[in-house]
Amino acid sequence: MSFTFDHVTLGQRVLFGTGAAADNAVAAVEELGARRILLVHDAFAVALADAIAERAPVVRRIDEIVQHVPVENAERATAVAAAADVDAIVAIGGGSVTGLAKAVALRTGAPIVAIPTTFAGSEATDVWGMTKGQRKTTGVDPRVLPKVVVYDAALSAGLPTTLAVASGLNAVAHAVDGFWAPRADPINRALGTEGLRALFPGLRGLIADPGDLDAREQTLYGAYLAAVAFASAGSGLHHKICHTLGGAYNLPHAETHAIVLPYVTAFNAPFAPDAAERIQELLGVPNAAAGLDALRAELGAPASLAAIGLKESDIRRAAELALPAVPPSNPRPVTVSDLEGIMRAAWVGEQIV
Amino acid sequence: MSFTFDHVTLGQRVLFGTGAAADNAVAAVEELGARRILLVHDAFAVALADAIAERAPVVRRIDEIVQHVPVENAERATAVAAAADVDAIVAIGGGSVTGLAKAVALRTGAPIVAIPTTFAGSEATDVWGMTKGQRKTTGVDPRVLPKVVVYDAALSAGLPTTLAVASGLNAVAHAVDGFWAPRADPINRALGTEGLRALFPGLRGLIADPGDLDAREQTLYGAYLAAVAFASAGSGLHHKICHTLGGAYNLPHAETHAIVLPYVTAFNAPFAPDAAERIQELLGVPNAAAGLDALRAELGAPASLAAIGLKESDIRRAAELALPAVPPSNPRPVTVSDLEGIMRAAWVGEQIV
Repeated sequence: MSFTFDHVTLGQRVLFGTGAAADNAVAAVEELGARRILLVHDAFAVALADAIAERAPVVRRIDEIVQHVPVENAERATAVAAAADVDAIVAIGGGSVTGLAKAVALRTGAPIVAIPTTFAGSEATDVWGMTKGQRKTTGVDPRVLPKVVVYDAALSAGLPTTLAVASGLNAVAHAVDGFWAPRADPINRALGTEGLRALFPGLRGLIADPGDLDAREQTLYGAYLAAVAFASAGSGLHHKICHTLGGAYNLPHAETHAIVLPYVTAFNAPFAPDAAERIQELLGVPNAAAGLDALRAELGAPASLAAIGLKESDIRRAAELALPAVPPSNPRPVTVSDLEGIMRAAWVGEQIV
Repeated sequence: MSFTFDHVTLGQRVLFGTGAAADNAVAAVEELGARRILLVHDAFAVALADAIAERAPVVRRIDEIVQHVPVENAERATAVAAAADVDAIVAIGGGSVTGLAKAVALRTGAPIVAIPTTFAGSEATDVWGMTKGQRKTTGVDPRVLPKVVVYDAALSAGLPTTLAVASGLNAVAHAVDGFWAPRADPINRALGTEGLRALFPGLRGLIADPGDLDAREQTLYGAYLAAVAFASAGSGLHHKICHTLGGAYNLPHAETHAIVLPYVTAFNAPFAPDAAERIQELLGVPNAAAGLDALRAELGAPASLAAIGLKESDIRRAAELALPAVPPSNPRPVTVSDLEGIMRAAWVGEQIV
């Protein structure tokens, strides 16, 4: 463990309470002194949005949500917010809802109260992203970090189990990739470890009984800490590979993470023994990569990139595209052949032993 | 573990690097855009203060430091800062130096870059304190939280070992008392646990070889996390007892903590099994309180309140004074007789079995 580091802790309030989302959100906007609220939510969150609108000064609602925050949608939402002189944004939904709220906050400076319904973790970061055509632009700005996050495990109950699992494995990838990411340090490693300590049993409980609220609470709590760790540590090799695959070949985000993570772990583990040990200890297995792959299988997530639509003929090009994004600090040096090997193994769904 | 909580994370940057204090401090004030710096430091920090003054725009220096931040000193320092139109404060020293810097920040709003030389942890909190005569006033304000903390394990090398140990045990008390403090939650418990994981071996290494820089790094890192956990969780039973003893009978701060902690732990442990287990696991002992007492003895810290000057005849009155401050959320109900029992055991230095 290196004791030379530069760690940034992002200031944020987290209200965690199952069944308490409306109460906590209303209390949060009151404390912010908000009088003109923009409510952003997706179709799953209508009931909660209505409940909040009844008790808080909501002046506008946006429920047209498109993945990856197209610039046009961001501009439209910002214009709505500006015209209505909005002084706070309440965002209820998954990563795309939080993303749209962040785009509005970036321009207006209005504080965000985020109420996540998935395990995506965007609510714990100061990173924003928008897409124009096929091109995604991202940036970091303190204004887009939600001031308050309201977590309510009951909200994810509407999420289909396959989506919940994929989203949860995406959270696992935040923690694991954070272990060897460019700004990995003892603090974010400890937070990521604590996140995995909750995520592993949480996800197993969730697949055993989708109605198990305790398991959902654990998963949600773990996903939050994993996101905090990831926001602090930055994107590692795993995320660079997944973003390349997602961006260039339009693969589904969470599933791509679930499939690729064990192979990146197998590649890095010999050069990152501390990370491997943490994962092994928490999973109770002798091999971190095999353990993560077994967890993926146990949770019923897709087994190969082939299964989610990547063509074998695209692998070489994808490896070439990903190479420039690989962090120079990755514990193991990475060549284009290495990337091709990782992607091919993930494409086949090769068994890790 | 309860999953209903309200957790506030304080935003802060931490630069950790042994031997790099001057470089990191200069980089930090540059990033803040500071052009008129007030340098506050104690007598141990003259060399570092000189080094920083050579490379950064320091316009005033204050090196008259009094314990507990007397109001008159705070007012004088604030007047100096205001007259010099200071736009940042660099504070090098222990808790009293950070405390004076906070008092100035509270009035002027100037950001603080804190460079701690002890394990007191004040740099990780948004709590300020001042004394007028015998009376201490404390408060919470976001302006007093240092924007940047610069840690350099080499700086504590000048600290006498007895002081280093007492300060380190004070840090242990931050983490342990945080486990059952009013705002204890899974996140600050995890941070406190991580703090103890570093503090226990760090302090043992430090007493075995005061020149062991690795041990000092571990202790400093652990003390930081313990302070973060404590700032989030609030003061528990232990701190309320120690503050009463310190305030009314002028006992030395860090030593009082070192002596009292095992007895408070013995009292609370049966009602806080999760906290007891964490301590036991990290110390590798079957009884948390006995383990903490053995650690105190191993480190050569004073064994009893009698040894540091409390009179037996003051115990009953101290218990009565402390009672109203006891957090209602303490896991075990507390009567004045209970407090008297804890204080008497600590006064004697009773062996815990």
